[in-house]
Amino acid sequence: MRLFNKVAIVGTGLIGGSIALAIKKKGLAGEVIGVSRHKKSLALAKKKKAIDRGSQDFAIVKDADLLIFATPVDAILKAAPKIRRIISKGCIVSDVGSTKREIASRLEKLFPNYIGSHPLAGSEKRGIVNAQPHLFEDSLCILTTTNKTKGASLRKIKLLWRRLGARTLILTPSLHDKILSFTSHLPHILAFSLIGVIPRKFLRFASGGLRDTTRIAASSSELWPDILLSNRKNILKDIELFEAQLSRLKAAVRRKDKETLKIILEKAKRNRDYLDGL
Amino acid sequence: MRLFNKVAIVGTGLIGGSIALAIKKKGLAGEVIGVSRHKKSLALAKKKKAIDRGSQDFAIVKDADLLIFATPVDAILKAAPKIRRIISKGCIVSDVGSTKREIASRLEKLFPNYIGSHPLAGSEKRGIVNAQPHLFEDSLCILTTTNKTKGASLRKIKLLWRRLGARTLILTPSLHDKILSFTSHLPHILAFSLIGVIPRKFLRFASGGLRDTTRIAASSSELWPDILLSNRKNILKDIELFEAQLSRLKAAVRRKDKETLKIILEKAKRNRDYLDGL
Repeated sequence: MRLFNKVAIVGTGLIGGSIALAIKKKGLAGEVIGVSRHKKSLALAKKKKAIDRGSQDFAIVKDADLLIFATPVDAILKAAPKIRRIISKGCIVSDVGSTKREIASRLEKLFPNYIGSHPLAGSEKRGIVNAQPHLFEDSLCILTTTNKTKGASLRKIKLLWRRLGARTLILTPSLHDKILSFTSHLPHILAFSLIGVIPRKFLRFASGGLRDTTRIAASSSELWPDILLSNRKNILKDIELFEAQLSRLKAAVRRKDKETLKIILEKAKRNRDYLDGL
Repeated sequence: MRLFNKVAIVGTGLIGGSIALAIKKKGLAGEVIGVSRHKKSLALAKKKKAIDRGSQDFAIVKDADLLIFATPVDAILKAAPKIRRIISKGCIVSDVGSTKREIASRLEKLFPNYIGSHPLAGSEKRGIVNAQPHLFEDSLCILTTTNKTKGASLRKIKLLWRRLGARTLILTPSLHDKILSFTSHLPHILAFSLIGVIPRKFLRFASGGLRDTTRIAASSSELWPDILLSNRKNILKDIELFEAQLSRLKAAVRRKDKETLKIILEKAKRNRDYLDGL
């Protein structure tokens, strides 16, 4: 069933491309158009039937009734004022950025029908080449709203994500960033740091544990500096919480305190088992 | 093809049970017997056809020509002198402990045909209930030797692991412990610490990254305190290396230094991609 007439995807990478593919496949829009700085990405998006038309020029988004920003944070912030001059006031606007406080406060000033989206369905892989229409099935998509949010726009975006197979959950932008600092940004920081200290010659002794623990360290070094800087305060606080916990464990190892180690490890196991049961 | 007449497995849990199952399935021994403190584990091992006979009494290991310790480190150290009085001098003895320096130095004094084994094929799961004969296929098994090691015993143990499907690699016990501190113990410590600081109410927002990063935090809180304490010096050193790396990343976030973040993240990605290509 058609939800929109013309959907514009700004940034036809892994996430933007997968949204486009899913919308096309499910027939949720009359037309899907793509904008990208990269000609190759547009050509491949068209070849994969993710988009009907593509352009490097923002003018193509005119008359869209849904526009989704799916580029890195700094590119969204640069493109937004230009896009504003082209689209109609009624167009629903969303983004798929990994942090929300900074983006939401900027975009909701520019677009009266803005809703933040964060589909928790990424991957350490990138690009339209890895896009696939099932990416969001059985995943969670966090939507962010503020007291300026219009109910009708929210209902439409919620419906879109559900049609793409995702459950939706609504948070404020600042609670979103607080939570994601713990559940995504801190794990990435630890993975980046861990793989950085292991001598390369020892990597051939890696077992499944190290591989799993560091998988996300292969995430894009283009995207992640901006993600970390756009959630700086939460991240600094959570790194310090982590450092204190690691210190406790280190001190227990240092003084050969088996009982304390057991208590820390039992609590860790309980929490991880709880996560597994969710 | 039969490699041994009577194989004794001391500790019929995940690893011991899987070795027993594989030896039985491939017909590598005339008889496989199991020793465990737990009657239930022995009964299930027999039911799964991992062992021909089982007992809580060490006396059953008499006349074995291969004996493998597959209990936690402290249980091995306690059982070893008792086992020594029962088995013949010609019996090949090995263990599957996660650290090797302490164990190898004790066991090679007691058993003239001792070789250390460390199959890198564990799991956060435990017990004979999870044992399976294919556990070691396409895995790496590190063997440890010293200048006391007999060539004939080493060849026989090497052949055993290859028949179980593992590649083998020989290290000294102390190099083994140095490497595993980086590739296994440090990742476990970070996973234990990470899952310990995330508020439980935020866990439902976990995506694949957090799940993977903390999977090994569900490892046994019975086994791991001993593993950490038996490799204490390496672990303390490596935690400090990690803390220094995390500090560098934290400082770059604090001073909004995007260039340094990019350099750290690019190096992390290169190392992780290298690991993926191994």
